[in-house]
Amino acid sequence: MSDTLELARALISRPSVTPDDAGCQPLIQERLDRAGFQGETMCFGDVTNLWSRRGTARPLFVFAGHTDVVPTGPESEWTTPPFDPQVRDGVLHGRGAADMKGSLAAFVTACERFAAKHPSHRGSIALLITSDEEGPAKDGTARVMDTLQSRGEQIDWCLVGEPSSDATVADTVKNGRRGSLNGVLTVYGVQGHVAYPHKAQNPIHTLAPALAELAAADWDAGNDSFPPTTFQVSNINAGTGATNVIPGSVEVTFNFRFSTESTPESLQARVDAVLERHGLDCRIDWQLSARPFVTESGDLVAATLDAITGVTGRQAALSTGGGTSDGRFIAPTGAQVIELGPLNATIHQIDERVTAADLDTLSAIYEGILERLLTGER
Amino acid sequence: MSDTLELARALISRPSVTPDDAGCQPLIQERLDRAGFQGETMCFGDVTNLWSRRGTARPLFVFAGHTDVVPTGPESEWTTPPFDPQVRDGVLHGRGAADMKGSLAAFVTACERFAAKHPSHRGSIALLITSDEEGPAKDGTARVMDTLQSRGEQIDWCLVGEPSSDATVADTVKNGRRGSLNGVLTVYGVQGHVAYPHKAQNPIHTLAPALAELAAADWDAGNDSFPPTTFQVSNINAGTGATNVIPGSVEVTFNFRFSTESTPESLQARVDAVLERHGLDCRIDWQLSARPFVTESGDLVAATLDAITGVTGRQAALSTGGGTSDGRFIAPTGAQVIELGPLNATIHQIDERVTAADLDTLSAIYEGILERLLTGER
Repeated sequence: MSDTLELARALISRPSVTPDDAGCQPLIQERLDRAGFQGETMCFGDVTNLWSRRGTARPLFVFAGHTDVVPTGPESEWTTPPFDPQVRDGVLHGRGAADMKGSLAAFVTACERFAAKHPSHRGSIALLITSDEEGPAKDGTARVMDTLQSRGEQIDWCLVGEPSSDATVADTVKNGRRGSLNGVLTVYGVQGHVAYPHKAQNPIHTLAPALAELAAADWDAGNDSFPPTTFQVSNINAGTGATNVIPGSVEVTFNFRFSTESTPESLQARVDAVLERHGLDCRIDWQLSARPFVTESGDLVAATLDAITGVTGRQAALSTGGGTSDGRFIAPTGAQVIELGPLNATIHQIDERVTAADLDTLSAIYEGILERLLTGER
Repeated sequence: MSDTLELARALISRPSVTPDDAGCQPLIQERLDRAGFQGETMCFGDVTNLWSRRGTARPLFVFAGHTDVVPTGPESEWTTPPFDPQVRDGVLHGRGAADMKGSLAAFVTACERFAAKHPSHRGSIALLITSDEEGPAKDGTARVMDTLQSRGEQIDWCLVGEPSSDATVADTVKNGRRGSLNGVLTVYGVQGHVAYPHKAQNPIHTLAPALAELAAADWDAGNDSFPPTTFQVSNINAGTGATNVIPGSVEVTFNFRFSTESTPESLQARVDAVLERHGLDCRIDWQLSARPFVTESGDLVAATLDAITGVTGRQAALSTGGGTSDGRFIAPTGAQVIELGPLNATIHQIDERVTAADLDTLSAIYEGILERLLTGER
């Protein structure tokens, strides 16, 4: 059993459901201690964060990730218990195997080998690990970044270990993320009896054509780095349950995933214009979850693509698709940020799993990136 | 205090929330006994019904109504307790004052006076009273009508005491009711993450343009007896509550109130056609609540309008607007059916009430109708 696989198993056996770290970070720091890292635990609320750095000079390369995992769902539906990691036919099973304890293990073993080979590498290496990426994410990476910013620790390059791979390991590198903008729309009408519609105003009826227009709209065409902006309604609710009452209001929850061709302000203005054109009596509560970010090129992207080819012999694709990640808290400080991790096919599901050999491949790629950025070697 | 008001108070003081008669029907029958009526209690399930007839000959005139009342809502919000009937400034307060214990009292006193004056009137008079008009209405008037039909008791004229009046008592006579057709539409999509809309299909988005079309449609133009058919959505629900999940389905509850220009079949076909044109993957569960009925003219309408003018000096309007009533179970047997009762402004509300003098007016009109139909006098 490889060193990376063994560490991944040790991490999975700790049931660290958000925000409980369950001893994962101490285990990681114990290993990093021996590789010359200085560990610092930062607790905010009930969230535990680890900032562990080797060296003090710039450039600073950071591996970012999280020890927390999503709940297991019904344990009886798992083939083997979610926190009892088992390898079957070369596949590691367990909650967090792919998201993202496998990546954490690969971070650590890559650092260990690199530090052993290059004890006096240039710059610094650090790990930024939180126990709240899957939860509210208020007291995790965001707070650690605030702390680092306040004391002037500037990150130059950051690799987030989120499961970015699609069909084969390292086939896809995320070099940015779309923005995410939530809206809660309430349309007001006048409640009444369905038998007397002239005495009421049905907000579902006034909403329908406006909603049809929003659902059909082209928001932008995207660009080289981003797919087009999308609009999706996630919830719609109106009515008392009674079949003879016209409801007084209807509530709609929707989300934009948006490219750098749109801004929160431009999207809000366009939604407002549609609702106004349809004469709706309504209000919207907006919540900006993340602005889009992208690392189009530079040392980090080049080193990553080159390291992948070096290890796998294949070319990886750059993508900004998918959900949000903690990269949104790191990119705004000026760091180059990419995400590279295992296949995402089973994350958040029953029987989450990862091919054991993929963890060794990732560890080798991570080491290759450090080689390219912190030694100048090839 | 008038005889009618006194009886209305006695009825209101019995808390007969559906389906509990709470002793109202025995009280009514006790009075009718003395006026020569033969009473027959018909119990079906937990529903109590009274069929009380004076005479055996045709034509048969029936006063139809119900002793049950809707729940009071928070009693603390009532100015005086809902089952402690009080007259303040000439207004009788209490649950059921308008819907429809006031009418029941007026039925009884009209019958008493008429029978005393015309002990050998032609034809017969009957009261058909149920304790389940406000509830499921399965074991009430519908079952009594089945029983009457099975033994060949044919109703010629029926006056339902539902509160038909709008601004002044007896200003409006309902001479029919629209049909009521309910549908529960479920539109299916493919559940997914809002960040990956290309892997999902949002049923709210596919529904929206179809719903806009249904909400804007003209179903028919109505006719002399009926206003145009209306379509109203009463409930719409989709979503898990999470803001990042595209729901797998959306459910819409809607209701048609329809004129005799449409049929349940024609409305269903038109809805199906709209949904099909929009390519929706969906199903609809239909439930026909009532077919439309109308008594456009005839002895009953003429006698009623004439009696109203005789008592009030005013002309009443005929209308088929409003909700459904138990008339829907009586009209299909071939009876002429009209509805005439007090103002409906406070029915089903806190502080339900009726002007005491209006009950005397109604009793006089009811008596006048009997005079016109069962004596030939004027």
